[in-house]
Amino acid sequence: MSGDIAWIGLDWGTTHLRAMLVGKPGEVLHELASADGVATLGPDGFEPALLALIGPYLPPSGSVTMIACGMVGSSIGWREAPYRPVPCAPLDAAAAATVPVNDPRLSLKILPGLSQSNPPDVMRGEETQIAGFLATHPGWDGILCLPGTHSKWVEVSAGEVVSFQTFMTGELFALIGGQSVLRHTVATDGWDEAAFAEGLDDALARPERLATHLFRLRAAGILEGLDGHAARARLSGLLIGAELAAAKPYWLGRQVAILGAETVASAYHTALAAQGLAAEVVAGRDAVFAGLTAAASELAGRRA
Amino acid sequence: MSGDIAWIGLDWGTTHLRAMLVGKPGEVLHELASADGVATLGPDGFEPALLALIGPYLPPSGSVTMIACGMVGSSIGWREAPYRPVPCAPLDAAAAATVPVNDPRLSLKILPGLSQSNPPDVMRGEETQIAGFLATHPGWDGILCLPGTHSKWVEVSAGEVVSFQTFMTGELFALIGGQSVLRHTVATDGWDEAAFAEGLDDALARPERLATHLFRLRAAGILEGLDGHAARARLSGLLIGAELAAAKPYWLGRQVAILGAETVASAYHTALAAQGLAAEVVAGRDAVFAGLTAAASELAGRRA
Repeated sequence: MSGDIAWIGLDWGTTHLRAMLVGKPGEVLHELASADGVATLGPDGFEPALLALIGPYLPPSGSVTMIACGMVGSSIGWREAPYRPVPCAPLDAAAAATVPVNDPRLSLKILPGLSQSNPPDVMRGEETQIAGFLATHPGWDGILCLPGTHSKWVEVSAGEVVSFQTFMTGELFALIGGQSVLRHTVATDGWDEAAFAEGLDDALARPERLATHLFRLRAAGILEGLDGHAARARLSGLLIGAELAAAKPYWLGRQVAILGAETVASAYHTALAAQGLAAEVVAGRDAVFAGLTAAASELAGRRA
Repeated sequence: MSGDIAWIGLDWGTTHLRAMLVGKPGEVLHELASADGVATLGPDGFEPALLALIGPYLPPSGSVTMIACGMVGSSIGWREAPYRPVPCAPLDAAAAATVPVNDPRLSLKILPGLSQSNPPDVMRGEETQIAGFLATHPGWDGILCLPGTHSKWVEVSAGEVVSFQTFMTGELFALIGGQSVLRHTVATDGWDEAAFAEGLDDALARPERLATHLFRLRAAGILEGLDGHAARARLSGLLIGAELAAAKPYWLGRQVAILGAETVASAYHTALAAQGLAAEVVAGRDAVFAGLTAAASELAGRRA
């Protein structure tokens, strides 16, 4: 079976490592994942973590081409792949950094992220999702929303990333819900669509009041017995609503597609629908795979 | 020496316990403090924590009157002192909860906090600072700002708290600076007045953009080598600026006094001064002491 592997794509972020083992005709033979994210590894931990995940699938001899995206290419990653400044195409496989390895079966390149100088901003990993989206939507112009720990709003035109803006929404949700005084009020799971919609409305109406909207959740928990699931959905609505209010110059009157994991993409889709905007949703996993595939094709073309 | 103690005031919050041992003529004989905050203690931990701090100063026989304010009166405190709804005077010693104790030398009452039903909000401890401020500023009408973990803006008129609003500014500063991705960018101390002013200006101009202003600090750290002290001051400016933008209906065109610890009170004073407002600053410690003293007088008067 290992002989069937043509190349391996790696989505290696702060908290996770995901591998897609791809066969000759381009289909995914195996998808593997571990919790060996960049934040958990020291400088000497990357190669062992990679081998622990994919080692059993490697051929006994010869090397397998691997292409990675994400924080693995940052200054705290395995090897730094310097940012490419926008405006530019989201993908340039020729700019990938070659990683020195000990195991001769590994042949690894890391795709660079994108940077913007004014206002300063950076992304790592999302550029590969954007490239994948454009590979499956040739000629598409508009706005991409990539929700997550650090949500990105991206203007795409003529195959290039023109500008982008990052919001710490997902990280704020985790910190505020899990570690602030609101942890006594906000449940760790569960949902309530009405409470989400209320949070959205409050935040969109008065987005500058975030810090007081947040404490009001705590007070409502104490004084009114606010349900933990409702509090969680309302917190999400407040934070996504504040993001939509600030990102309005991006999405208002534009064609928008959301690239992300199902749950969070669905929340953003609902939020935009409430603003009268019907956004396309593409699974983040599919976009990453398409982007890594595009990079593999570029590299194969250069070798040919 | 212990015979000189007339009463003891306790400021017992989430993270600290402070005691003021007061002599007959009203002067403070000793100020003591420990890290035995409410959040660190279980239900049976309060009396031992109190005795550990003040035990050496207690007389061998007889009991000493003690008056406490703060989270010690919450549902996770020693004994719950139910909220008093606004509008009301900040202090009503008759509503204090009597705490059952084992050591006969202790005679402890906990002052209640204040609640507001619409919008829902609560305070515990700040009401005693407000009472102390009014005791030293009789007839004062205006807006009190009590910056801190959960900053309060309070409208005071005719000796009553009319309304108030809480912002999670201090808690957000600690969480975002210490635990988010910005911990790589933001120093744990240090200051830069110019960076603070920039953060204020950015937040007051576009307060709804907080989540993206925050990530911009990270990007500026990566791309421009933003100094950690400057990043810390700028983060503070962004959060205080967002609070001032949202609290503008409170302070605009009003008489404002700030009650708080020196460093944070000074930051708010600077921020309000940049908006053309000259606020009086009163040390939070002095306000608490004056409030506990007023409560002690009320209780003594009722006994007399």
